[in-house]
Amino acid sequence: VSIKKGDFELKIKGLVQADVRTYLDDYNPANTSETATTNRNGLYSNDTVTFRRIRPTFEGTFGKLVGFRLTPEFAGNGSGDAASIVDAYIDLKFSPAATLRAGKVKGPVGLERLQSGGAITFIERGFPTELAPNRDLGIQLQGELFSSTVNYTLGYYNGTADGRDVAATDSDNRKEIGARLFLEPFKNDPSFFQGLGFGIGSSFGTKDQGAFNAGSANNFLPRIRTPGQLQVFSYTSAATAATATAAGSTGVYADGDHTRLSPQLYFYRNSFGLLSEYITSEQELSQGFVAVGAGSTPSATTTQKLKNEAWQVAVSYVLTGEDASFRGVTKVNQPFTIGGPGWGAFEVAARYGKLEIDDDSFDPVTEGGVTFARYANPVSQISEAEAWTLGVNWYLTSNLKAVLNYTQVKFEGGGGGTAAAPDDREDEKTVFGRLQLSF
Amino acid sequence: VSIKKGDFELKIKGLVQADVRTYLDDYNPANTSETATTNRNGLYSNDTVTFRRIRPTFEGTFGKLVGFRLTPEFAGNGSGDAASIVDAYIDLKFSPAATLRAGKVKGPVGLERLQSGGAITFIERGFPTELAPNRDLGIQLQGELFSSTVNYTLGYYNGTADGRDVAATDSDNRKEIGARLFLEPFKNDPSFFQGLGFGIGSSFGTKDQGAFNAGSANNFLPRIRTPGQLQVFSYTSAATAATATAAGSTGVYADGDHTRLSPQLYFYRNSFGLLSEYITSEQELSQGFVAVGAGSTPSATTTQKLKNEAWQVAVSYVLTGEDASFRGVTKVNQPFTIGGPGWGAFEVAARYGKLEIDDDSFDPVTEGGVTFARYANPVSQISEAEAWTLGVNWYLTSNLKAVLNYTQVKFEGGGGGTAAAPDDREDEKTVFGRLQLSF
Amino acid sequence: VSIKKGDFELKIKGLVQADVRTYLDDYNPANTSETATTNRNGLYSNDTVTFRRIRPTFEGTFGKLVGFRLTPEFAGNGSGDAASIVDAYIDLKFSPAATLRAGKVKGPVGLERLQSGGAITFIERGFPTELAPNRDLGIQLQGELFSSTVNYTLGYYNGTADGRDVAATDSDNRKEIGARLFLEPFKNDPSFFQGLGFGIGSSFGTKDQGAFNAGSANNFLPRIRTPGQLQVFSYTSAATAATATAAGSTGVYADGDHTRLSPQLYFYRNSFGLLSEYITSEQELSQGFVAVGAGSTPSATTTQKLKNEAWQVAVSYVLTGEDASFRGVTKVNQPFTIGGPGWGAFEVAARYGKLEIDDDSFDPVTEGGVTFARYANPVSQISEAEAWTLGVNWYLTSNLKAVLNYTQVKFEGGGGGTAAAPDDREDEKTVFGRLQLSF
Repeated sequence: VSIKKGDFELKIKGLVQADVRTYLDDYNPANTSETATTNRNGLYSNDTVTFRRIRPTFEGTFGKLVGFRLTPEFAGNGSGDAASIVDAYIDLKFSPAATLRAGKVKGPVGLERLQSGGAITFIERGFPTELAPNRDLGIQLQGELFSSTVNYTLGYYNGTADGRDVAATDSDNRKEIGARLFLEPFKNDPSFFQGLGFGIGSSFGTKDQGAFNAGSANNFLPRIRTPGQLQVFSYTSAATAATATAAGSTGVYADGDHTRLSPQLYFYRNSFGLLSEYITSEQELSQGFVAVGAGSTPSATTTQKLKNEAWQVAVSYVLTGEDASFRGVTKVNQPFTIGGPGWGAFEVAARYGKLEIDDDSFDPVTEGGVTFARYANPVSQISEAEAWTLGVNWYLTSNLKAVLNYTQVKFEGGGGGTAAAPDDREDEKTVFGRLQLSF
Repeated sequence: VSIKKGDFELKIKGLVQADVRTYLDDYNPANTSETATTNRNGLYSNDTVTFRRIRPTFEGTFGKLVGFRLTPEFAGNGSGDAASIVDAYIDLKFSPAATLRAGKVKGPVGLERLQSGGAITFIERGFPTELAPNRDLGIQLQGELFSSTVNYTLGYYNGTADGRDVAATDSDNRKEIGARLFLEPFKNDPSFFQGLGFGIGSSFGTKDQGAFNAGSANNFLPRIRTPGQLQVFSYTSAATAATATAAGSTGVYADGDHTRLSPQLYFYRNSFGLLSEYITSEQELSQGFVAVGAGSTPSATTTQKLKNEAWQVAVSYVLTGEDASFRGVTKVNQPFTIGGPGWGAFEVAARYGKLEIDDDSFDPVTEGGVTFARYANPVSQISEAEAWTLGVNWYLTSNLKAVLNYTQVKFEGGGGGTAAAPDDREDEKTVFGRLQLSF
Repeated sequence: VSIKKGDFELKIKGLVQADVRTYLDDYNPANTSETATTNRNGLYSNDTVTFRRIRPTFEGTFGKLVGFRLTPEFAGNGSGDAASIVDAYIDLKFSPAATLRAGKVKGPVGLERLQSGGAITFIERGFPTELAPNRDLGIQLQGELFSSTVNYTLGYYNGTADGRDVAATDSDNRKEIGARLFLEPFKNDPSFFQGLGFGIGSSFGTKDQGAFNAGSANNFLPRIRTPGQLQVFSYTSAATAATATAAGSTGVYADGDHTRLSPQLYFYRNSFGLLSEYITSEQELSQGFVAVGAGSTPSATTTQKLKNEAWQVAVSYVLTGEDASFRGVTKVNQPFTIGGPGWGAFEVAARYGKLEIDDDSFDPVTEGGVTFARYANPVSQISEAEAWTLGVNWYLTSNLKAVLNYTQVKFEGGGGGTAAAPDDREDEKTVFGRLQLSF
């Protein structure tokens, strides 16, 4: 709804997602307790009812030039239950071709990442989003050119870890540049390819955590999650490595260039939708040693560029004939009504995606006679994951959506065993349900 | 106030409570400092001005079917100062007899618990609320039958500790069922008993914290507070028990069925109000031992069902003739006006309540030659509390209320001494004042 | 914007400040890492883009008598990213000469402190604000007398540390009284001195942290920051003092009277503005010793009254002819327009300020043969700071403001060396930019 006064217009919007999460086959009968957070080779999670997003939005415009958006988050997905801010920016709209936006925004790299949290086809985004920047703080120039067929973003940001939000203030002195070019060449032409869009998103920056505070802050290192929202990969931390070695490890820290590149594509035609993206994230990481025991002579710090990659293909089809789009099914022909004929719109969808961690991450290193994982421990961290998801979306009205997803993820590594021969983590099988209200 | 656009209506409401809390006779002259948080047998608290509730509410409806409510809390009653969410749900109103509600709601057990925080007669709710579930995450079916004379709720929840809000995600894999039936048989009949309502609320579930993470999470164990908001009872934690024993204790953890039952009643007739409820909360708890010193051979874990109970009776009378109700005095005949004759409405109220902890909680146990409290320590935790409160409510207008309460609580145990002969905690005497704005 | 319903009016306002902070000459080439938070004698800080304030405001009135204001903060300036409440109060407006305000309000001492965060001339307030109370919880009577030429405030508060917000509940049992008298004798008389205002703000209270919990809570001790938002002074904490001494220190704690006094003045004439204030904060502090090693016999606790002071003078001039005021430039003659002649309003400003810590803070004390700083360590804490700032404000429209500030701060002490001959902390040179939206 909107409130106007003179040339000022304030819009109040909202997005609420209440989720039910069920993890199948995740109980290990050998374990007498059912509440272990880690057993069965790392796979266990409590079934739960939870809020995924509770986001009122305040959007406003002052005449043609100035606009803003404020979106707090009350679902407390981060640590604890506390509210925080997700989107907050000020716009200076010089022309449709050039808007200057300052504040907290989504980094311009991942395609599904840039899709609104209320419009995504599945309950959780896929693997490519885990390698793309999430919200970052910065200033960006964006706009549409050539009758809206070309869309560009060019920005300067604090720089954030893969798949994560930026901290309230920058954790290093270095910055990141992000850019995205997206084309919809047939947008204004009612042909078969009218709903085709493709482009490339990228970021380049330097991240420098510094050796001596490497253990304390890992704001720049990713902690990769599955679509079931369980963390399956992180780099070695200082505490982990220091145990049982004569010389302790500083843990892994960001120490140099970080480059992301993501070719991306979508195609919508009537009820059919296709979304696909590929992403690589290449980052220079260092790991050093510190003397622990008497007489220990730590080796030199090593720096390496590691490259993780992910891709996905998702298709969807609206059974009841409504149009599919990057914004979801926005218009429902026959909304659900009590005692009436309407049942809303139904959509089916399927997705396949893959994540590959750089193999060099798992190279062992020997220090003071003890061998351990230099960048990541193959016993506890996965090296590869493949996920497929089947979903049904029921749009009762254009404001209310019910979603049901089945997802299965197959892993390599991370399931115990030895560093030389790690076991695979058990398959993750989840049934997630969602009731979503948006206005 | 409400904003409409088409069949969407958004309502903005608010509740602000600024409290002044004074604790009488709580200074121990033998202690040279006046800021001890524990002295005089556990009783000491700083006098303070504080916010109890700062709750804007966004409520909306989309046509007849869909509704929602979002209430953040900015008073930061939890740890720290941070905002959180108290109510957040989506409604599907199939008919007055059947509404499906999903999200964060009050568990359907305690009568005073279900009364709105702005409508309660006294500044703080009584002992029964400390044994009832507070907000829980889940899905419930609710409705009114037989011309609104029968009100029912049936729900499926994550399950929460007595007197506490649920965590953002479930802390175990087990769930809880809650149900409430409330009758107002003479509601539509203008007789003496028109304002009579009675019913029963109940919950049944299993809670399973697991032995090996018992010490870390006590999300399922109550920490019971007085009307003066001081904690007077909690179960033994791992850290407490482990000191000075050859075999340490895992601390107490939830480990089995948890059943609550609460018969309840209210009666409003003109200016007179009566509210009474009784509640029992029965929960299976376990406590085990872990080897600490060399050669210690821990005994087996013991599990026991412990039953706590509480009840209260509260009466109120509006001196200025307005009607009393479960929603408070909602209409003030002569609002307070500057230079005018109106002085608002005045209400007097009194309450008596009692809390009893299961005596078996305090059974001692001997392990490795050391005797200590198995479930709760009678030296520091009370076993019984009796409270009476006198109150005056001044409704200046229907939006502004000033409240003054005197409460005195008498305890058994928890005041030092020895486990065999614990001293009683000193009486708690409090004068609380409140200025409340609601709209 | 405002929404009305009957005699209830709700206003929604907002303030967003996105800042870019650059620290010049803060890199020490001798240090191989660029992310040190302390090097170059204490001076180092990461350049960053950050939000300074994200504050929606809900303000309402019910008829003539009752009003309220709620302002949450979403910028997460405190620890972490969490939302909190900044302003929250209920007003009872008996007459223009007497309004009773209860809740969380700014303490009535500092002049620039009382200026709205969206109206201040520079990006950060000056040194006097670091010695004045920030938001406090309490009840105050305020009003305007003699045709608004006299403005008074008299309040009773929990009491807060210099430059800081109060905690959610009081940390001691003692309270604070605050009062302010401000005169604008020529306000209603269009003479040269029409825009002259002067007065005095003051607070008096007792703060009592208690010796035995002195180390845990320092809610009552200031941590003084520069205009560059770096902390340059704090009193000795328990942990610091205990190292390397046979008898440890309890750390410094508030232990007695705390008095603030601040004469203040402003003068606005057409485009010219002048704001000046002086403040002293005098507080009784204690520091004691606790036995650490065997045979250590701690000396007695010492208590001392320490007096810190600060002052500043700021001048500003609007180049484009608009009127300056305590509320900033509120009306822009020719707002910035795309393709139009308007460029907005431009203002230049300069400020000089000084902070002096009581010299007695740095007196050494010898305990168990070890000499250390009793109240503050001159090696790490500054004893004096002088700051000058040059600023440009560009009011594009009356809602949108861009600010650029250069600030240089010169310190005494706090830059390493020895307690007998401490080095000076390096000059702080900052370029801060801000984009501010307010409505």
